[in-house]
Amino acid sequence: MTDLSRLDATTARALMRDGRLTPRELTRACLARIAERDGEIRAWLSLNPRAEAEASAIAASDPRPLAGIPVGIKDVIDTVDLPTTHNSPLYSTRRPADDAPCVEILRAAGAIILGKTDTTEFAAAGRNAMTGCPADPSRTSGGSSAGSAAAVADFHVPLALGTQTGGSTIRPASFCGTPAIKPSWGLISTEGVKLYANSLDTVGLYARSFDDLALLGGLYGLPGAGEPPARPTLALCLTPYADELAPEARALMQSLPERLAPVADTEWLQLPAGMEDLDALHRCVQMSEGAAAMRNLPLRGALVHQAFLDRANRSEGHTARQMFEAYDRLADHRRTFETLTAPYDAVIAPAAPGFAPIGRSAGNPKFNALWTAMQLPCIHVPAVSEPLPLGVQLVAARAQDSRLIRLAAQIAPALAFSPPAVTEGKDD
Amino acid sequence: MTDLSRLDATTARALMRDGRLTPRELTRACLARIAERDGEIRAWLSLNPRAEAEASAIAASDPRPLAGIPVGIKDVIDTVDLPTTHNSPLYSTRRPADDAPCVEILRAAGAIILGKTDTTEFAAAGRNAMTGCPADPSRTSGGSSAGSAAAVADFHVPLALGTQTGGSTIRPASFCGTPAIKPSWGLISTEGVKLYANSLDTVGLYARSFDDLALLGGLYGLPGAGEPPARPTLALCLTPYADELAPEARALMQSLPERLAPVADTEWLQLPAGMEDLDALHRCVQMSEGAAAMRNLPLRGALVHQAFLDRANRSEGHTARQMFEAYDRLADHRRTFETLTAPYDAVIAPAAPGFAPIGRSAGNPKFNALWTAMQLPCIHVPAVSEPLPLGVQLVAARAQDSRLIRLAAQIAPALAFSPPAVTEGKDD
Repeated sequence: MTDLSRLDATTARALMRDGRLTPRELTRACLARIAERDGEIRAWLSLNPRAEAEASAIAASDPRPLAGIPVGIKDVIDTVDLPTTHNSPLYSTRRPADDAPCVEILRAAGAIILGKTDTTEFAAAGRNAMTGCPADPSRTSGGSSAGSAAAVADFHVPLALGTQTGGSTIRPASFCGTPAIKPSWGLISTEGVKLYANSLDTVGLYARSFDDLALLGGLYGLPGAGEPPARPTLALCLTPYADELAPEARALMQSLPERLAPVADTEWLQLPAGMEDLDALHRCVQMSEGAAAMRNLPLRGALVHQAFLDRANRSEGHTARQMFEAYDRLADHRRTFETLTAPYDAVIAPAAPGFAPIGRSAGNPKFNALWTAMQLPCIHVPAVSEPLPLGVQLVAARAQDSRLIRLAAQIAPALAFSPPAVTEGKDD
Repeated sequence: MTDLSRLDATTARALMRDGRLTPRELTRACLARIAERDGEIRAWLSLNPRAEAEASAIAASDPRPLAGIPVGIKDVIDTVDLPTTHNSPLYSTRRPADDAPCVEILRAAGAIILGKTDTTEFAAAGRNAMTGCPADPSRTSGGSSAGSAAAVADFHVPLALGTQTGGSTIRPASFCGTPAIKPSWGLISTEGVKLYANSLDTVGLYARSFDDLALLGGLYGLPGAGEPPARPTLALCLTPYADELAPEARALMQSLPERLAPVADTEWLQLPAGMEDLDALHRCVQMSEGAAAMRNLPLRGALVHQAFLDRANRSEGHTARQMFEAYDRLADHRRTFETLTAPYDAVIAPAAPGFAPIGRSAGNPKFNALWTAMQLPCIHVPAVSEPLPLGVQLVAARAQDSRLIRLAAQIAPALAFSPPAVTEGKDD
């Protein structure tokens, strides 16, 4: 098998159980793919020098759900055996005392921690990741979970962890073309994950199949019982920010009723007047919580990027009181959204404003931040691969995570069936 | 001066600036007090063997706000130079890679990290702290911030950090008799603080004077501009759980109108019908968020206390969906509370159900959890010292923290003026 690195975890595990694949073979295939590709893609900040030895120590018959499966970990998440630098010169030699619990759970399930992936500094601002989009390395893989998205999409590793505070999991998934979930807030421990904005920060999961997302969801205990109906009803929502969509993203959204017709009923849905402040509320919370999270950074001297000094100094002027009022208003919006969308099995919205831009910017979080602010689960479904990847996200009520993964699996084939006509390309 | 260990930080700093005290003298006095007392009180899990050397390296003229001031750090908060064990056998040898930002800020201000204080395991359940109440070591100092409260009250150290998820800062302050603040949620970074329940966990501050709380509040940037009026208006609130008050706590509350009459106007305030579910909402959030936070612990084997397995397994049956609905209902309650209490400068409520119980239990959080659930700032003001310490707490709207410290300073002399008659003692 020459394409071992292309296996998803579910298939790889089945082959291992059948005695047709060993953990060592899979890890070697991933490392070979990285050796071939990462000079150009630059998804990784560090690789585990013991990975092959660790894989060799795992029997193919090991019954653990991730036995021998290589995973990538965004470098803002603590790992006990590899540096965790937050891609910041302030922490370039940092070695955590523990795995973050979200990593410990993977390791206990048998995963091989293959290495740490590149990220926007502190998953926030400052240094960009150096990671290129696998489909066109002159373009960004997005941010902040740049390396995790690219590593999975480019077949370096079947699974990876990212994080999302604005759009840091879903947008890179769209730019790179890979499934991903930003779960409902608060369901996966953020201990040992660099703090940025506490009521927004969420551990995100990357995989190359929805079976694999379901596997990871099971390990983390993501809730959401019940099967979606055979023919789901989906609300299509351009969000209040539709005028920021590039033509390719607009064309993709417009193509959905026809694409989905064989498998689902669709209706257009507009968020009610008053909810257009979601982006501003997100910004207020992110910047205010960020001020607390980054208050210590100015003490660390000359290597602190101005963006973090600005946050610590509340340079955008959001007060703590405004932050608390934003929490309350977001609580209203969450309930409004969940009531409004109760008749639907999910909402489908743009995952990004368009294709990955040229360069190494993180990209515009406008189509992600509103859902993150409401703490809702979001799943990226790839829908376009030519000329570049682009996807949509499924959004649902909080705690519907696992059901939403099943729904995504159900409709994904219809979504990816035929790329939409794109009359005009545009970088945003 | 034989009572150097009794100085508050503000006074000690003034003496240092005047050349009448050195950092080394103060640290030696604190260490001598600990040597004398801690065999009985057991506030400390570890002491910094370099403390005296570190203090000797600080000039009395050093202008930093905490230059040469010894502080205690609850042992669920990461320190780079001392173990951070969470008082758990699972982490007995743990050495963090960094100071938690809340510690880094103290250290950068010149504080001497004197040691790590005893705590309920993971600030949650499991192992109790071994710390005795300074006024009567047969009784508990409360929990979970047992050691920090006792260390400050017993003159081991002028300042200490604790945490609060239910009542873990304010209740020990009442049992031990020392000022403390549980700030509004989200204002002090909880990075590097053991995660228990993310929307509740708050770093708490202990001191022996309100000047010192204001000093710490300034370092952490606690908001709350404006001076309280010369004669404030205070609402006295027994909470919906008044029938759980021991006679001494009820007597204290009943004495407030007379005690406060010289300095404030008071009115009795009842929370509206419907808010009696605050305690249940708190429990739901704490247990549900705790399930995510403790999901990794069962992987760690035989040393995991059953209480944490129960949390990880959601043995109380709270679902993730119920957690999200609790968030929304708490958002309603916060607004209701802030609207209702807008005419008052603060609410005064019991800080604990009564005196510290015999033994080493953490105590009943019923009079703390409701305020923590609403993310409100709470300040403990000692009000009774005989036969045992007991206090009240001032509660205000979110982001009023610094103003609340000034208000506490203003009314504290009247509160502590005369202990109430206690007709009957009772352990709860």
